[in-house]
Amino acid sequence: MMKDEASMIIPTFDDVIAAHDRIRPHIHRTPVLTSSYLNELTGAELFFKCENFQKAGAFKVRGASNAVFGLSDDMLEKGVATHSSGNHALSLSYAAGRRGIPCHVVMPRTAPQAKKDAVIGYGGIITECEPSTSSREAVFTEVQERTGANFVHPYNDPRVIAGQATCSRELIEQTEGLDAVIAPIGGGGMISGTCLTLSNVAPEVRIYAAEPKNADDAARSFRAGKIIADDAPNTVADGLKVPLKELTWHFVEKHVTDIQTATEQEIIDAMLLTWQRMKIVIEASCAVPLACILNNPDVFRGKRVGVVITGGNVDMKTLPWI
Amino acid sequence: MMKDEASMIIPTFDDVIAAHDRIRPHIHRTPVLTSSYLNELTGAELFFKCENFQKAGAFKVRGASNAVFGLSDDMLEKGVATHSSGNHALSLSYAAGRRGIPCHVVMPRTAPQAKKDAVIGYGGIITECEPSTSSREAVFTEVQERTGANFVHPYNDPRVIAGQATCSRELIEQTEGLDAVIAPIGGGGMISGTCLTLSNVAPEVRIYAAEPKNADDAARSFRAGKIIADDAPNTVADGLKVPLKELTWHFVEKHVTDIQTATEQEIIDAMLLTWQRMKIVIEASCAVPLACILNNPDVFRGKRVGVVITGGNVDMKTLPWI
Repeated sequence: MMKDEASMIIPTFDDVIAAHDRIRPHIHRTPVLTSSYLNELTGAELFFKCENFQKAGAFKVRGASNAVFGLSDDMLEKGVATHSSGNHALSLSYAAGRRGIPCHVVMPRTAPQAKKDAVIGYGGIITECEPSTSSREAVFTEVQERTGANFVHPYNDPRVIAGQATCSRELIEQTEGLDAVIAPIGGGGMISGTCLTLSNVAPEVRIYAAEPKNADDAARSFRAGKIIADDAPNTVADGLKVPLKELTWHFVEKHVTDIQTATEQEIIDAMLLTWQRMKIVIEASCAVPLACILNNPDVFRGKRVGVVITGGNVDMKTLPWI
Repeated sequence: MMKDEASMIIPTFDDVIAAHDRIRPHIHRTPVLTSSYLNELTGAELFFKCENFQKAGAFKVRGASNAVFGLSDDMLEKGVATHSSGNHALSLSYAAGRRGIPCHVVMPRTAPQAKKDAVIGYGGIITECEPSTSSREAVFTEVQERTGANFVHPYNDPRVIAGQATCSRELIEQTEGLDAVIAPIGGGGMISGTCLTLSNVAPEVRIYAAEPKNADDAARSFRAGKIIADDAPNTVADGLKVPLKELTWHFVEKHVTDIQTATEQEIIDAMLLTWQRMKIVIEASCAVPLACILNNPDVFRGKRVGVVITGGNVDMKTLPWI
């Protein structure tokens, strides 16, 4: 890790190597799948890095495991804490369970019961808040003060970014001669990890971020040259509603070639197409890259493109095309 | 091939080797996936042979390709024909398209438009019939007489069975020390192929067939010692409604350890569980084996069990749990 001028702690590629060694026993080296149908449709050669097959169903387990298994012995008893209603909460609960330490999760009481059950299933301890930022922050502060647990932010944390960076490290080992990698962007943890790895081991590979048009704060930030955060964007890609923070902005600003967007209907169509043609279950969030590739054929035609499928935790009772 | 006393042509393991060499350029060697969650749930070690990732979305492309690519030159011009509203029609169209020969498919006019579109997409030529056995047979006879096409039965055909047998040949190469293999049974093509391969290369491996309780003609045939065919069983596992025929009965009677059954709800639950936990799209038909494993824990506990996931062609608009 190194400090930059604003005294943020910036993870380095040495941290990625250390993270990979640390988390390897707790994660899958997920497969890279291809689809001749989607190659024909896009005119590109697509290599799907399938983190939907990852432990706990998403790439987030990489960063969460790196944080949990990197804790020093004196921090174990108090455990970890986070606020999240999504895959980070699941992943942190999973990792904490593997290490046998407590994991405190602040979740809105309105979060789907299935998500709460999944967190509890991995051993997480839920404290409910009201579905507002102010309530979430107040409840989280109370939980952290009461428990003394180590806060693991879903993305604005150097340990988390170093962990997520192991995903594109595997992708680059599994797939030769990539021209570009495209991944969804919400808070920017996956994209930052991708930047961290590729800028070190394959700086010639272009990095594209894919965002819902309905939650395009990262695309607008990119054009404006500073972080723009929206209050409560609404999109089917529910993992991508959160804004960039200073640490992820550092990587996005420095290494991303472009941030592309897709409409809700384009995202749903790309999600359905992936289920139908590739026979894999992916979240709406990770259909955004394919939707953007279909929207920008000239950018990707003839190129070898890594596509990060970030997760597969889907509520099967409410599919967006039904 | 060899003739038995009733002058059926019975495929041999040499036919399987020849089939595998013949079809290898046209099929995927599909992966074998595992799920630590399902292993814990069942107490068995399950190895899922994922033919949902197969070309045209199902194992049927193995048998269809073997028939199509085994045709002699003088038979090419007239092409192939079949009656099917399911994966065999798709697969035969795919294989015929790869060889550049006509493929005539008789389908009920009431078949889902998505299935018709898929057959047409692969280049198949559809002739519609009424949704009754008598109409189907009459129309098929007319088509065959008019075109002179070679009839490729969905399962009661030695070329088809030799082709399906390549699936368990791969499974046994990919997975060491299997105690048992379980696969769905409808007409018995996959199970017959499994019997053909395993009885030759791994006779110690037990073979279980899995059938919907609502269409349990194979299980009743097995107990009665003769083929019992139902007229029109109704089950969510729509690939498994057809009865055994003499060729598949030959293999089932000789090599199958048991035929187990599952209710409609058990099948739907196992299908949903697979989608949720393994993040793969599978048909209701190939959820029947997992449902049967869950129904018969004492049979499979502690065993290494190959599970054939036969296909992934699902109508995403009408999922059985919604």
